[in-house]
Amino acid sequence: MKIKILTLFPDMFNGFVGESIIKRAIDNNVVEIEIIDYRTYSNDKHNHVDDTPCGGGAGMVIRCDVIDRAIKANSGDNTYICLMTPQGERYSEAITKELALKDEIMLICGHYEGFDERVRGYVDRELSIGDYVLTGGEIPAMAIADSVIRLLDNAINSESYKDDSYYNGLLEYPQYTRPVEYNGDSVPEVLLSGNHKKINEYRLKESLRKTYLRRPDLLEGRLLSKEEEKFLKEVKDEEDNK
Amino acid sequence: MKIKILTLFPDMFNGFVGESIIKRAIDNNVVEIEIIDYRTYSNDKHNHVDDTPCGGGAGMVIRCDVIDRAIKANSGDNTYICLMTPQGERYSEAITKELALKDEIMLICGHYEGFDERVRGYVDRELSIGDYVLTGGEIPAMAIADSVIRLLDNAINSESYKDDSYYNGLLEYPQYTRPVEYNGDSVPEVLLSGNHKKINEYRLKESLRKTYLRRPDLLEGRLLSKEEEKFLKEVKDEEDNK
Repeated sequence: MKIKILTLFPDMFNGFVGESIIKRAIDNNVVEIEIIDYRTYSNDKHNHVDDTPCGGGAGMVIRCDVIDRAIKANSGDNTYICLMTPQGERYSEAITKELALKDEIMLICGHYEGFDERVRGYVDRELSIGDYVLTGGEIPAMAIADSVIRLLDNAINSESYKDDSYYNGLLEYPQYTRPVEYNGDSVPEVLLSGNHKKINEYRLKESLRKTYLRRPDLLEGRLLSKEEEKFLKEVKDEEDNK
Repeated sequence: MKIKILTLFPDMFNGFVGESIIKRAIDNNVVEIEIIDYRTYSNDKHNHVDDTPCGGGAGMVIRCDVIDRAIKANSGDNTYICLMTPQGERYSEAITKELALKDEIMLICGHYEGFDERVRGYVDRELSIGDYVLTGGEIPAMAIADSVIRLLDNAINSESYKDDSYYNGLLEYPQYTRPVEYNGDSVPEVLLSGNHKKINEYRLKESLRKTYLRRPDLLEGRLLSKEEEKFLKEVKDEEDNK
């Protein structure tokens, strides 16, 4: 897969592409990331890409012609173009799975006061990573790229992501590692028992408990297996009688 | 304000602290950012900070004793400690405003399979930036730091953020800049009229329209001024009769 990111601040991505799982995915040719500077597509000698808002007001607005040229020069028929905007559709793991199937995605970052409104007509989708205001679209583009790369083949150990929060629609069960006892707080005994059936049951039940206590909305409309149903009932009895 | 970030990947933050509004805020002493490497608080000679999960399974879990030492060495009575986790409370602009009032915040990033569960007992708050899985807490920490710094005095032009999406509880009105006409698509005439009363009315109405069409949940329970009520009624009539 190829991910192209349009930005006013290409250097913001240096750390992102150079570390950890993303670096490994790039090194293993699982993904190619191209950072594209809007200024390349300015058509004035000072490399301006933004201008003051029509009708007045503070801040600068990125010009639609600059973005249009940048998109046209860097996209093809297979490019799925996403605008990073707080007004977009709420990004979720379901959208991650959709994006992971594309050949090429382009993530367009705004900054300051944002884009000329006409830009919304040039893209396939508008995405927001949450209800909070950021200084630009660069961090949202990193979040989306990171979540998508994570799902791609080989980018991570295929065993690892199956139990993550949201992947199977439940919050993850509690994880523990050494030291077994620390400041009077111990790892649950079952995890040290070596009994894999019991460990799996514990994990499923605690995953249901976390979800029930913290995110009951994730359980609504979910089809439960017989085992899940039984554990969820136990969890409800335990928690509601506390 | 001081923001301390605990991470396994300190270099991921190089671009973040070196660019744009965040760099300006640091240069103007509005904020001090300290990136702290967990490995400093390892107590073995190989600088290990994680270990395999108790009970088996893929991935590595960050040890609670390492995080405990890192927290104790870097926090005081005024430090508000937040854990970056997909199981946390959903981050929002309301929480941004709360965090912006603190003297010092500490953002704790996990990676891979996450933390030992006991770590949850060491922090003031658990935060999630959205319902998607990332490779670590570094991008969430950037998102939270960015949104908070944005609100701090002097970090940005005080005129600018008042109209941003979510700041006043509505989505932002459409912004336009030159060229006035591009590919047959023009800037709305009212914005070129110079009539500031009409421009303000247009902006309020379009802000209400965007919110009504894209995020009607933001209008629920909101107290509307007489003017907002009138425009919202007009918007509803226009949109529902389309």
